[in-house]
Amino acid sequence: MEKLMENDVFMAFSTYAAIVILKMMLMAPMTAYYRLTRGAFANDEDVSRKPAEERKKLLRAHPDVERVRRCHQNDLENIIPFVVIGLLYALSGPELSTALLHFRLFTGSRIFHTIAYVGALPQPSRGLSWMLGMLVTFSMAYRVLHNLRLNSTHSYHTDLWTCLFTVTVQKTR
Amino acid sequence: MEKLMENDVFMAFSTYAAIVILKMMLMAPMTAYYRLTRGAFANDEDVSRKPAEERKKLLRAHPDVERVRRCHQNDLENIIPFVVIGLLYALSGPELSTALLHFRLFTGSRIFHTIAYVGALPQPSRGLSWMLGMLVTFSMAYRVLHNLRLNSTHSYHTDLWTCLFTVTVQKTR
Amino acid sequence: MEKLMENDVFMAFSTYAAIVILKMMLMAPMTAYYRLTRGAFANDEDVSRKPAEERKKLLRAHPDVERVRRCHQNDLENIIPFVVIGLLYALSGPELSTALLHFRLFTGSRIFHTIAYVGALPQPSRGLSWMLGMLVTFSMAYRVLHNLRLNSTHSYHTDLWTCLFTVTVQKTR
Repeated sequence: MEKLMENDVFMAFSTYAAIVILKMMLMAPMTAYYRLTRGAFANDEDVSRKPAEERKKLLRAHPDVERVRRCHQNDLENIIPFVVIGLLYALSGPELSTALLHFRLFTGSRIFHTIAYVGALPQPSRGLSWMLGMLVTFSMAYRVLHNLRLNSTHSYHTDLWTCLFTVTVQKTR
Repeated sequence: MEKLMENDVFMAFSTYAAIVILKMMLMAPMTAYYRLTRGAFANDEDVSRKPAEERKKLLRAHPDVERVRRCHQNDLENIIPFVVIGLLYALSGPELSTALLHFRLFTGSRIFHTIAYVGALPQPSRGLSWMLGMLVTFSMAYRVLHNLRLNSTHSYHTDLWTCLFTVTVQKTR
Repeated sequence: MEKLMENDVFMAFSTYAAIVILKMMLMAPMTAYYRLTRGAFANDEDVSRKPAEERKKLLRAHPDVERVRRCHQNDLENIIPFVVIGLLYALSGPELSTALLHFRLFTGSRIFHTIAYVGALPQPSRGLSWMLGMLVTFSMAYRVLHNLRLNSTHSYHTDLWTCLFTVTVQKTR
């Protein structure tokens, strides 16, 4: 265990994984802020202290709140795969410089993605930052699966699933 | 660290975790494809290049897009718990054959679940594939918690939380 | 590998991570239960066995179902960051008693959060339990990033990203 946290690549992974997860968590207070300032709530009990006539009006969806929620959802859909694939990637023993390039590109792309989404910047700024993050994760996944295939001469690699996978990888060369 | 990636069960886990995470990530391009072909967008800036009269019509929810998004959401709700529980399970030292059975059943069930959801196959095909995935994850979670209870004679296992858990496990026998 | 599962803090993490993930997974059957009892479905194929005139009425959103789904979504947004940060935290070698305090506060806060959300308890019960969970995760993230900065004299810690982070940490003292 101490060894994991003395490994350069794993330390770099830990740093960037913590940063992007923290960035994702900050979407929740941001949603709360927009709900309060825009007056758009989802639950009866959240507006129970308001006068009765106001309550119904406050239980609504506001475009700004929905925008932040879509951004949060996009984070869930992209940052969590990055963390999972990134952990396996860090354990697969890549070069530190290559690993850092992956982690930094992803972190940068997601921070820019949030700015582009919440700020409603003109496309394709949001689309491209999303795509860059996806490509970084795919690149790490390729390395993980490729390594596993090479290092492994074990039984579980000789059956249907792996054959299918091996064929796919060889075709893509 | 090198040891983790030389361990058969952990290598198998890495392979199947990467496969199901990649499958989940592919739901994003699929959503983009349906948004483009069905003409159903969520953000103003995504339709800014269209003629003004078309824009409002394009900012809508389309049933096909919502279907893919529900499938993506279901993946988030099932595949991520599998990855977390599967990691702890792989570290708990199960038999390779048992572990492979779990990982393969789950991977197969989720691939079939996506086909059943996006293809709108008649029920209970989607329901059963969802349930199979849940049962696999529950089975691994049981093994993880059971092992932790057996292996542990430590202080943190003698207090309220663990007593509650122990009672629950013993009742279910 | 065996070492990880012999480590007290890691065993404690595994126990509580499995408990909160299982709690999160139980939201799915709960959603199914509310969909069936409230008669509110999302997919055509889910109501295909009902008489034709009933079908359209059943394809609707019901407030009780939406409430459980919002609770499930909140779990995804909070429990998964806890698991990721908690794993890195457990690997950073904290005191067992401190780690247990973090894990138990989080687990308790999320169980109470679910009760407060599904039971529609008056605010601020739900808000406070959500905030407690967030603070626990932030506290663990601080420890992870702080430790990484102290232990590291490596190249990746001397560039722009880390400088930014270092400045932020020092300012908050």
